[in-house]
Amino acid sequence: MKVIIVGGVAIGPKVAARLRRINPDAEITILEKGSLISYGGCGLPFYVANLVPRLEDLMTTSYGVIRDTEFFAAQKNAKVYTQTEAIKIDRINKRVWVRNLLTNLEDALPYDYLVLATGSKPSIPPIPGVKLGRIFTMHHPHDAQSVKDLIKTKQVKHVTVIGSGLIGIETADALVSPRLKVTICEADSRVLPKLLDSDMSKLVEQKIKGHGVDLQLSCKVKAFEGDAEDNVCRVITEQGTIETEMVIIATGVRPEIGLAREAGLTIGNTGAIQVDEHQMTNDPAIYAGGDCAEQRHLLTGEPVYIPLASTANKQGRVIADHIAGIPARFAPVEGTSILQAFDLTIGRTGLGEEEARNRGYNVVTSVSSGLDATHYYPMHALITIKLIAEQENGRLLGAQVCGIGECAKRLDVLATALKFGAKAEDLIDLDLAYAPPFATAIDVLIHAATTLENMRQGIALGITAENVTKRLAAGEKLCILDIREPDEVMANPLSLDGTMVIGLGELRERWEEIPRDSLIVTVCGLGIRGYEAACMLQSKGISQVAFLQGGLNVGSAFFKQ
Amino acid sequence: MKVIIVGGVAIGPKVAARLRRINPDAEITILEKGSLISYGGCGLPFYVANLVPRLEDLMTTSYGVIRDTEFFAAQKNAKVYTQTEAIKIDRINKRVWVRNLLTNLEDALPYDYLVLATGSKPSIPPIPGVKLGRIFTMHHPHDAQSVKDLIKTKQVKHVTVIGSGLIGIETADALVSPRLKVTICEADSRVLPKLLDSDMSKLVEQKIKGHGVDLQLSCKVKAFEGDAEDNVCRVITEQGTIETEMVIIATGVRPEIGLAREAGLTIGNTGAIQVDEHQMTNDPAIYAGGDCAEQRHLLTGEPVYIPLASTANKQGRVIADHIAGIPARFAPVEGTSILQAFDLTIGRTGLGEEEARNRGYNVVTSVSSGLDATHYYPMHALITIKLIAEQENGRLLGAQVCGIGECAKRLDVLATALKFGAKAEDLIDLDLAYAPPFATAIDVLIHAATTLENMRQGIALGITAENVTKRLAAGEKLCILDIREPDEVMANPLSLDGTMVIGLGELRERWEEIPRDSLIVTVCGLGIRGYEAACMLQSKGISQVAFLQGGLNVGSAFFKQ
Repeated sequence: MKVIIVGGVAIGPKVAARLRRINPDAEITILEKGSLISYGGCGLPFYVANLVPRLEDLMTTSYGVIRDTEFFAAQKNAKVYTQTEAIKIDRINKRVWVRNLLTNLEDALPYDYLVLATGSKPSIPPIPGVKLGRIFTMHHPHDAQSVKDLIKTKQVKHVTVIGSGLIGIETADALVSPRLKVTICEADSRVLPKLLDSDMSKLVEQKIKGHGVDLQLSCKVKAFEGDAEDNVCRVITEQGTIETEMVIIATGVRPEIGLAREAGLTIGNTGAIQVDEHQMTNDPAIYAGGDCAEQRHLLTGEPVYIPLASTANKQGRVIADHIAGIPARFAPVEGTSILQAFDLTIGRTGLGEEEARNRGYNVVTSVSSGLDATHYYPMHALITIKLIAEQENGRLLGAQVCGIGECAKRLDVLATALKFGAKAEDLIDLDLAYAPPFATAIDVLIHAATTLENMRQGIALGITAENVTKRLAAGEKLCILDIREPDEVMANPLSLDGTMVIGLGELRERWEEIPRDSLIVTVCGLGIRGYEAACMLQSKGISQVAFLQGGLNVGSAFFKQ
Repeated sequence: MKVIIVGGVAIGPKVAARLRRINPDAEITILEKGSLISYGGCGLPFYVANLVPRLEDLMTTSYGVIRDTEFFAAQKNAKVYTQTEAIKIDRINKRVWVRNLLTNLEDALPYDYLVLATGSKPSIPPIPGVKLGRIFTMHHPHDAQSVKDLIKTKQVKHVTVIGSGLIGIETADALVSPRLKVTICEADSRVLPKLLDSDMSKLVEQKIKGHGVDLQLSCKVKAFEGDAEDNVCRVITEQGTIETEMVIIATGVRPEIGLAREAGLTIGNTGAIQVDEHQMTNDPAIYAGGDCAEQRHLLTGEPVYIPLASTANKQGRVIADHIAGIPARFAPVEGTSILQAFDLTIGRTGLGEEEARNRGYNVVTSVSSGLDATHYYPMHALITIKLIAEQENGRLLGAQVCGIGECAKRLDVLATALKFGAKAEDLIDLDLAYAPPFATAIDVLIHAATTLENMRQGIALGITAENVTKRLAAGEKLCILDIREPDEVMANPLSLDGTMVIGLGELRERWEEIPRDSLIVTVCGLGIRGYEAACMLQSKGISQVAFLQGGLNVGSAFFKQ
């Protein structure tokens, strides 16, 4: 059995490795048009940030062996041809035409099964001047190398990052320093627009600005201008001009589908190669996976294009198994994504609130803040969890996390719960591991789920900081009731219109002082005491009351602008 | 509605807080026989370790307010009587008799609902001399205070910890230092016998010894002997005598059920108070929860006694809800537990391998090692995951984790998957969050699940280090095939009988050199290459081959004794 794999970066080598283990006789060939194979592309921002010292570190195994042509030959018994481009698929005769990019010689290789692992390419917007020098992407190790070399020469004092998706944010964080100023230009009105809802984005924006990055939102780039040497020196936006010395384009990626399309394989509406649950294209001899293929979404059942290394690796196993006769299936995705930047861990899984509403779901959400470990344990930090669920039954639709503290664990638990169709009440019941270094006795995730369920059942009435800000901006009168302890208020006083301070401990005595002619918003540090205060006021017959969700841990990002 | 809560440490205050929020009119009274309420008992070892500077830190809220009588009165509108013991329940007249421990005055308080939150007490074995001075438990803040004070005076140079359960291990780790020697006496043949299977215990034992602790297993204590001042100075065991200056008894806890039993409430076979899914006892006016009540196990459906602060808090919510008329239920537990000690994070959920076998399950297990983050990211470390599943269908029964790296996340994901009846194939499909700081592209958990599924299906043949050690000890001939890279072998050579070194990269050329008259065990660092080598040898027609599960990351604990 001859198996040809087009693409040698992520999923290609995975298919080869798994297939070799379960089928010792397969003749496996990997074609890679670049000179490097099997590298950790996700590590490029960390290389630029000097967290990864050498580019080769991204190409070695965990035990220090370079995954090169010889490695694949000796350890996987797979032939690897680098700098060899697959230029055409002859589906009728089951042959793939290849061109050696060094010699320009062409040849046709026969296959029984062909695996398209052609990956993605940066999506570069057609902006005038985009081909000027010193305009880079962060897609290939060569890009990262060029960026780092140019910074090392110290000629560069200002970099502009176009786009604030995952790679844009990681790269901005990797670059910014007292000696290197960074401007981010984001066309959307918020950062990480595909990852986070606007309320969660705000938490990230606050941190980005706190790190000294010039963050320009709703910023449309009209042109790049070059200097005498045709290197970029200016970014022209609708709002004005940014003098700069380097530009990183981080406006996403597109699937590399030329070969597939030309061969008549079906391309989905997402623009990526359509595959079935076995990763098979419409030609049963041809599979596709990784960044060139689309996935199916767990919640909507619809095709999506969410290219991730984790997805690619899992698909690689499915493809190898299916070729070997094992009826493996690739499961629908939840789009679970995570990044670490600007001291924050940021992530999401499932649908966002906007996405869910747009799809007609009757949505209930909660935004909760809490500590990732007991407050008396020396290492503890805050995290914020947003949960999105169906109002009718509490079924989880999605989740977003953001914080300095341990967010990844809560995100993975939520991604796992989502897979099994968990409801908020199931999350409350989770038997998660508790010890002081790892959680509070009521884990912040369970607290978040409880808040969600309380809100869904109408036991708790919460209001988001975004909503408070909008109402105040619209001139609505609100009573902002700050129920924190005196030292907390002193350290971080609230200056919103209509703020009134009564500590929670005094509230039972002094509640009659509170004006009742407008909505009362109870405000505390994390939202828990605010909820308690709101319950207390409700018990006094006050119905126009809501607690600030996530407390000032979330609110500060909105109120101090 | 009058609600009396007996016990003010963990679940008692939780019942009061939740009930107050959902029922503003309830008259809530908390009775606590001690002088302190609402303290974080789980933090005591960290106080002893000087990680928590002041004992009061365990009694404050996260925003720095002491949770004392005044706090509960002002913030929760709940009366708290400390140093007040509930001595008798008059179920017919719905009254509880109390005694003020300062004045010795008795009184009867009427209730509509009574909540028993009487907690647990240390289980102290009836060993002669156990009442000598300087013999402590680690149960109450006073205990921790006494231990710490005594160490501060620097009279103590040696401490003996009796028992190596969770508290024993945490306490030993908290105490051991170059100036304070620690001996652990464990009656069982392994540490953490209720938490881990013997193979996982071995990993912990290696670390404990590495920290200079004198670990005595299968060690039965016969007596304690005292000095002239009746302070303990000697521990007499069946194996010999340990000169010591302080003893910590950490042999578990028993539920505090005196009051319940005397009132004729049903006590379960576990020795704890029997409750239904609403935490109701056989008297519908009396609830029980926390450390005095039993739980039901998710997998066996049987009553268990696994006292945990996380469980108590969740039960508190259920009790308050049910009293308020909300039909809440407490879900069965998985016994998820975690601890941090000796640089390791150690945890388990569900059933252990031995437990599962004893219950008649046809069990398949895998032990896998891997990195918690990409190897090129600066912060990464190893963890080991043991999965226990049903051979028939791959349904997860339990999991154990141990390692310097990030184990808590994987444990919580497994605990979540377990709740939903996940099979190994579901774990393989999990859409977990990947970025270089948080995971490898194939998360170690997914790798563990894949290994389990490969073994279940007979694709991979693994052998445990424990099994290898037993076979070699029994004189069986094995071919230990070390397929690591030369520098790895040099750094950490294997010295087992029958060891042969052929690097994986040479194996395809040199496999015929390997003797085939005994089982070939392929050995690498983490188990992944060993699996690959085993597959390769199988493809050459060699059937007597198995890879060392978890590689030398696990094997070292067994082979270097």
